[in-house]
Amino acid sequence: MKAFCFDVFGTVVDWRTGIARAAEGFFSRHGLGQYDPQGFADAWRQLYQPAMQACRSGKRPYTRLDVLHRENLEATLAGYGIDIGALQPGELEALNSAWHWLDPWPDVVSGLARLKRQYIIAPASNGNIALMVDMAKRAQLPWDAILGAEVTQAYKPSPQAYTRMADILAVAPAEICMVAAHNNDLSAARQCGLSTAFVARPTEHGPGQATDLEPSEDWDIVARDFNDLADQAGC
Amino acid sequence: MKAFCFDVFGTVVDWRTGIARAAEGFFSRHGLGQYDPQGFADAWRQLYQPAMQACRSGKRPYTRLDVLHRENLEATLAGYGIDIGALQPGELEALNSAWHWLDPWPDVVSGLARLKRQYIIAPASNGNIALMVDMAKRAQLPWDAILGAEVTQAYKPSPQAYTRMADILAVAPAEICMVAAHNNDLSAARQCGLSTAFVARPTEHGPGQATDLEPSEDWDIVARDFNDLADQAGC
Repeated sequence: MKAFCFDVFGTVVDWRTGIARAAEGFFSRHGLGQYDPQGFADAWRQLYQPAMQACRSGKRPYTRLDVLHRENLEATLAGYGIDIGALQPGELEALNSAWHWLDPWPDVVSGLARLKRQYIIAPASNGNIALMVDMAKRAQLPWDAILGAEVTQAYKPSPQAYTRMADILAVAPAEICMVAAHNNDLSAARQCGLSTAFVARPTEHGPGQATDLEPSEDWDIVARDFNDLADQAGC
Repeated sequence: MKAFCFDVFGTVVDWRTGIARAAEGFFSRHGLGQYDPQGFADAWRQLYQPAMQACRSGKRPYTRLDVLHRENLEATLAGYGIDIGALQPGELEALNSAWHWLDPWPDVVSGLARLKRQYIIAPASNGNIALMVDMAKRAQLPWDAILGAEVTQAYKPSPQAYTRMADILAVAPAEICMVAAHNNDLSAARQCGLSTAFVARPTEHGPGQATDLEPSEDWDIVARDFNDLADQAGC
């Protein structure tokens, strides 16, 4: 193994809590306290896969996630009946940037620091470079490089998102361990020859989460958290 | 200012000393002690600009620097009358990888660590991502991201090498300070609207260096070394 590459939203950071917190502030500033911020986070996130699918299918060229998030935010607010034309300039941008300032799960920084001593560590996220850099600087994520969709010009789970990463790092696919809390991400990575590590994040989607509670295949590593991952990697 | 982006070969690392050391080992293993390793480093480096020019002009698609270095190495060895067909497998690759393991100038690590506290720091090098990652891990260069030619798909001093970097970081060009020991790099960056910082490296080309000893224009910052740069940036 030469490198550990990480899914980020859900695996490294708790996007739902962070987006809900930003939405709560937005709602309270606009007298919209009747709305559930967690539900808003879920509704916004629900447009994530369809937006990327347009790029994956070739209907639309690669478009960075900040732009997709912004389009999805406007659609979500419109779905809530909120008149975005009445908002102050900059408010949508500020809410959209909440994805840049998400908190990592508590085991992340220590686990990554240990893995970094022996391996290349990098995000393999659908998030764009500026988003990943902002997040990393605030949360002290010690990445060796920012990889992911903007570098490979491909959104996971497209095969190019994994194969180009190996090509760029000049390693064999199996020398990269893809780390994710999502079985479908690992399944796509394995089909491209990458090694795989599953770390369950059982509250990513809130207390009632029903998906990705268990590994769905015999992944190369199944770890409780990033410190357990570092243990199993011999760091 | 939001980000400091750095030229690497010459500005961050002492490529000539590192390449000469690798060449010296190679020569001594092959009974070629009559050759001057510094001269070999210069001869190899001399093919650097013409090789990139083929990509810049569109005669050839973007090709990563590890590949260009390898082609240039074979041409340089052939120019020395060395039969590369007689070498053991892996020897050319090992010599080529010397570019991954260059030493930084003594002020670099401390200066970068200070700048990183307040700004995004990234290489804006013609070197490819794997090369930059290997170098950074060995030399402890605390980059926030690896930018440069492989990310922008453009070799400096092409304008796209600078403008795409600003686009990727989602900042105005003037919010990036391009740091280089080479006036022509800064001149191209300034034409794209970037801020500029000159740090002289008067022995990059050896004791008889005649170029880039002084700033050729009124760059925004002129610093003695990276610690002076951090001082002037208020870090």
